[in-house]
Amino acid sequence: MILLLGADGYIGSEFVQQYSDLYDIYAVDNYYKRILLEDMGIEPLYPVKLLHTRAKKYGFQNIAFYPTIEGLIKKIKPEVIIHLAEQPSAPYSMKNRETAMDTINNNLQGTLNLIYAVRDHSPDTHIIKLGTMGEYGCPNVPIPEGWFDCEYKGRTDRLLFPKNPHSMYHLSKVFDSDALAFACKTWGLRVTDLNQGFVFGTNGHSRYCYDDVFGTVLNRFIVQAVAGIPLTVYGKGGQKRGFIHINDSCQCLSLAVNNPPEAGEFRVANQITQWLSVNELAQNVADLVGCEINHIENPRQEKEEHFYEVEHKVLLDMGLKPQLLNDFLLEEQIDLVRFYEDSINVNQIMPKVKWK
Amino acid sequence: MILLLGADGYIGSEFVQQYSDLYDIYAVDNYYKRILLEDMGIEPLYPVKLLHTRAKKYGFQNIAFYPTIEGLIKKIKPEVIIHLAEQPSAPYSMKNRETAMDTINNNLQGTLNLIYAVRDHSPDTHIIKLGTMGEYGCPNVPIPEGWFDCEYKGRTDRLLFPKNPHSMYHLSKVFDSDALAFACKTWGLRVTDLNQGFVFGTNGHSRYCYDDVFGTVLNRFIVQAVAGIPLTVYGKGGQKRGFIHINDSCQCLSLAVNNPPEAGEFRVANQITQWLSVNELAQNVADLVGCEINHIENPRQEKEEHFYEVEHKVLLDMGLKPQLLNDFLLEEQIDLVRFYEDSINVNQIMPKVKWK
Repeated sequence: MILLLGADGYIGSEFVQQYSDLYDIYAVDNYYKRILLEDMGIEPLYPVKLLHTRAKKYGFQNIAFYPTIEGLIKKIKPEVIIHLAEQPSAPYSMKNRETAMDTINNNLQGTLNLIYAVRDHSPDTHIIKLGTMGEYGCPNVPIPEGWFDCEYKGRTDRLLFPKNPHSMYHLSKVFDSDALAFACKTWGLRVTDLNQGFVFGTNGHSRYCYDDVFGTVLNRFIVQAVAGIPLTVYGKGGQKRGFIHINDSCQCLSLAVNNPPEAGEFRVANQITQWLSVNELAQNVADLVGCEINHIENPRQEKEEHFYEVEHKVLLDMGLKPQLLNDFLLEEQIDLVRFYEDSINVNQIMPKVKWK
Repeated sequence: MILLLGADGYIGSEFVQQYSDLYDIYAVDNYYKRILLEDMGIEPLYPVKLLHTRAKKYGFQNIAFYPTIEGLIKKIKPEVIIHLAEQPSAPYSMKNRETAMDTINNNLQGTLNLIYAVRDHSPDTHIIKLGTMGEYGCPNVPIPEGWFDCEYKGRTDRLLFPKNPHSMYHLSKVFDSDALAFACKTWGLRVTDLNQGFVFGTNGHSRYCYDDVFGTVLNRFIVQAVAGIPLTVYGKGGQKRGFIHINDSCQCLSLAVNNPPEAGEFRVANQITQWLSVNELAQNVADLVGCEINHIENPRQEKEEHFYEVEHKVLLDMGLKPQLLNDFLLEEQIDLVRFYEDSINVNQIMPKVKWK
């Protein structure tokens, strides 16, 4: 059995949809994100049905609360836990101290609760954890998949590559990864840590956000294009980022499920299929739809021109067949968004949270 | 003015004693450690007076509670904050989930509270933070002082050296360092992060613990020698560690005070004066006092034979005059402990917390 934490989210709900025939999935969510969206007055492009109307096995439980997750793991002893139950937004985490604390508490405490529950009640369980490429920042060397051969002063060691997170959200994800690596090393747990790039796309049943807080960049561009307003690029747009289609994201989770690491192994994979600059991304959309591109002041603290190269062999070696961004895929997405054109609220697109 | 957080601790109380004539110190502690010792029934070698009887300016405040630290920093806008207010024990953090959470919550939340308060009310303040050499683990390459020239696949970058913490306590310190580095990079704060080795020694007025939870290794050996029982080495004893005398530890803090980094600079120094294996350390004591050495099962999860080399130039360049371990220094400590021989409780020495 797979215990899926965060099954109501953008990726979780797509995974439930696509894989619940193939796997026995126990889907759990505490609707943290739904409640957050409602509190903040943010509307996704279209409504998404509640989890219990979509999942076969369903738990609506406060997974940030230790006895709950402990009891559940003790009861079902899942072979695999896919842990997606995190606050996923960098701008949200940078709003103020309270949202930063909320992000770090929710994400880190959730992960710590998880490793203790697994250690004590189901130590053979394979934990699959979704991290992000943003944990690494933009180093001037290729980004390895977690482990790298470190050469220093004439000696060598195999170490975890240093992270350089650029928001409180990314910091919380670095904490998660460190805690998981510790659990493997110290208690012999088995973990796959997936550093995911920016996800894009929808099949019409997972939550599609296009706002400044929860919308990912390509999804936002597509909505801007459909709404007939200029695409807004933050700063110079030379920022390069890794991307992955939502179907590939789910495919990666499934591949990870079928390739458990050894006990004690902390396996890291970079879950992207390609990388592009934000300018290239915007140009792709603009060329197709014929819209303008506006460069606006960058609300974030980030390099706008930099080297970027990402190793991403682990998932390809497991059999990932990537769906790269092309005009056909973009048009398909644009058509889907056009279907909901009337519900687009352009007021929720411009960035309001500043890093400094 | 220096705001000293954790002024009632082993190092904090020594710093207050030695430097309160030289600096204007606002000493703060919430007696977290005192309460913990009492709760756990652990007795230091001799009683230490409460902070307010020793310090000129004194605050007994719950510094884990944000409005308190915010209000204090807003009011006094200190030039320097020395942040020692952390749960300092690896075995305590490894007792169970609750003590791990207590450690991480106390340490990380405290540091996060601090950086937000400084950012919002006193952004020029120089934060001096005590970390630990244990954050690095024992890599097979020399340990740089935080930053290192990373060479990978024919390219180079200056990055923070990867950490490899071997307890929940050390993990919490890694989190601290990451949060501080982030605050420098993103908000332009100035931080000195001191990775300290095992501190030893006393002048008779700071708290001297020799128990399995809060006692550092050399202090424990000295008590065992004085009590006439064998020195207990964990495992093979080939573990090499960095050490520093408590006077040098205070001297380093003072040097850091007088050498503030630039705004935005995250300066890292390795605060040790020498390194030795645990066997060498035990042998030094045994040779002087003529006691036995017992190797007991290692309760920790750590390498017992490994390469160890630590760069530690930053503080020497600032003018540190180290007091290296020698027979004279050891005899002085042994004499001081002998004075309290009757109050030694040998029942609190053997390790009770296991890592696995």
